[in-house]
Amino acid sequence: MSMSEELNKLRAQIDEVNGELLTLLSRRAELTKQIGDVKVAQGVNRFDPVRERDMLDMIVASNPGPFDNDTIRHLFKQIFKASLDLQQQDHQKVLLV
Amino acid sequence: MSMSEELNKLRAQIDEVNGELLTLLSRRAELTKQIGDVKVAQGVNRFDPVRERDMLDMIVASNPGPFDNDTIRHLFKQIFKASLDLQQQDHQKVLLV
Repeated sequence: MSMSEELNKLRAQIDEVNGELLTLLSRRAELTKQIGDVKVAQGVNRFDPVRERDMLDMIVASNPGPFDNDTIRHLFKQIFKASLDLQQQDHQKVLLV
Repeated sequence: MSMSEELNKLRAQIDEVNGELLTLLSRRAELTKQIGDVKVAQGVNRFDPVRERDMLDMIVASNPGPFDNDTIRHLFKQIFKASLDLQQQDHQKVLLV
């Protein structure tokens, strides 16, 4: 296999993984929206720093690499933040209705 | 089902998705390392802004929501950046041997 063929093959695999990541991120966002709804109904605060820390600890504990733990923490914190922003937008929409 | 049971069930699903995201992010990182190796062997620059833009366009084109496209772009840019940093560390290690 030539190097260009090798590169194309690897890129096709990356594209596939990107698609799977998108599916999972979207599924995760749907789940956090549902959690937000339950919490609003319960009247509890949606941001729970203990739960967030627990999730990060659990994730890092099973990190197989090659990303180091700090990078994994950073990426997941971005995902958590985006999910929380989405919950908040969602709740504001409800308040505006 | 009580609200706490509902919450626990949703959280268990989130934990599962977190684990799957970790697996995919790690697999993606391995693939970008391989791409970095091929590019070093070819003597081409590892950062390719056109490829990055194409990937983002492809990802956003199939975004099912609920994250908006800007959020998806932001999250994937963070993933791309982490991967590029990893390629660079990897190459520096080679240079230091």
